Amino acid sequence: MEGRASTVDVTVDCVVFGIDEAHLKVLFIERGLEPFAGAWALPGGFVRPGEGLEQAARRELSEEAGVTELFLEQLFTFGDPGRDPRGQIISVAHYALVRLSDHRVRAATDARQAAWFPVHEHPPLAFDHEEIVEVAYRRLQGKVRYQPIGFELLPRKFTLSQLQRLYEIVLERSLDKRNFRKKILAMGLLVELDEVERGVAHRAARLYRFDERRYRRLLQRGFNFEI
Amino acid sequence: MEGRASTVDVTVDCVVFGIDEAHLKVLFIERGLEPFAGAWALPGGFVRPGEGLEQAARRELSEEAGVTELFLEQLFTFGDPGRDPRGQIISVAHYALVRLSDHRVRAATDARQAAWFPVHEHPPLAFDHEEIVEVAYRRLQGKVRYQPIGFELLPRKFTLSQLQRLYEIVLERSLDKRNFRKKILAMGLLVELDEVERGVAHRAARLYRFDERRYRRLLQRGFNFEI
Repeated sequence: MEGRASTVDVTVDCVVFGIDEAHLKVLFIERGLEPFAGAWALPGGFVRPGEGLEQAARRELSEEAGVTELFLEQLFTFGDPGRDPRGQIISVAHYALVRLSDHRVRAATDARQAAWFPVHEHPPLAFDHEEIVEVAYRRLQGKVRYQPIGFELLPRKFTLSQLQRLYEIVLERSLDKRNFRKKILAMGLLVELDEVERGVAHRAARLYRFDERRYRRLLQRGFNFEI
Repeated sequence: MEGRASTVDVTVDCVVFGIDEAHLKVLFIERGLEPFAGAWALPGGFVRPGEGLEQAARRELSEEAGVTELFLEQLFTFGDPGRDPRGQIISVAHYALVRLSDHRVRAATDARQAAWFPVHEHPPLAFDHEEIVEVAYRRLQGKVRYQPIGFELLPRKFTLSQLQRLYEIVLERSLDKRNFRKKILAMGLLVELDEVERGVAHRAARLYRFDERRYRRLLQRGFNFEI
């Protein structure tokens, strides 16, 4: 059947994961408007006329939480009838992984507050946002097994311990040090530098950097990191 | 910004890959209505009131091409402004891989014809459907490296050559026989049967079946098939 339907509306929602030295957090906003006024939710809103989906997601993130300049990927489109009390409204969800210290948040427009919460300890969420967070979290954990991470999250020169810690925070489990090193070095992703870390109390560890060309290539082609 | 937008409409489109002994094909329909009347396109159409996204995709496939009973996955949502001359219309694309012989197609409703075309030799397509097919094709080729395939596509008992052929058709390149066998057997996915194939001119090959539990588990958890 053709003919315009005009009964379905389109929103975007964003799951922004933020990482620090020890935690994986998610960005939520407190809604200022009905429905669910006063409840926490993912930053997001309606797609505007003439706007692309990722463009809408970036605008909402900027407007509601003051977050800009991040690498967003489309996650999944949620469209169960009844997911929104206002009517038939689908949500094209996006997600990102950023360094917490790079993104101070501030609420704006129709958000009362914006804040980071631990991924498993956040207040109840509006709409089906709990499910969206869950899908994003599983995607993130799956993704680190077939794509490299860390380029935008670590300092330019880093130790293997810092890289391992990053994987441990995302995967939320500890990894065997020897095994991790053997496998990550086998990828050919890292360049060993003729430098060690400075200003540490323990024995200074070797510094590495990413081989940027190889990193970009593995992002495209994927790898098999049996972590 | 809140408030309903009502300027964006939602469609679904389906990329159905069909496989036979030697080819990978895609299902297209010839459009009966404007825009692009007479052009070939992916089966799809507007989401109806009260309908879920996958439900809409299944209904359109059934209505336009007579195809039912298949495992559809969501692919990606396409929303570039200008992708549809009728206005701002996003498409939630889905994809599937089926055995050609299981799905005889017949055009219905507003499709004039429905037909299978080789994935790289099809007529020009309406809208941005060429791009949607390309994204689906890349997804399919990537997917066979981290999820098992073949359960719904091969006979219950099959030879390793048949399984290898399936991978070769999807990947569109020939694979080294020894290497393929070694790697696929290492997955623990196959059960060797005490039977050989019958009625063949060449030396009869050993038959295998999938270990269904292991197969389902690997679908969930993923594997690393460095093919």
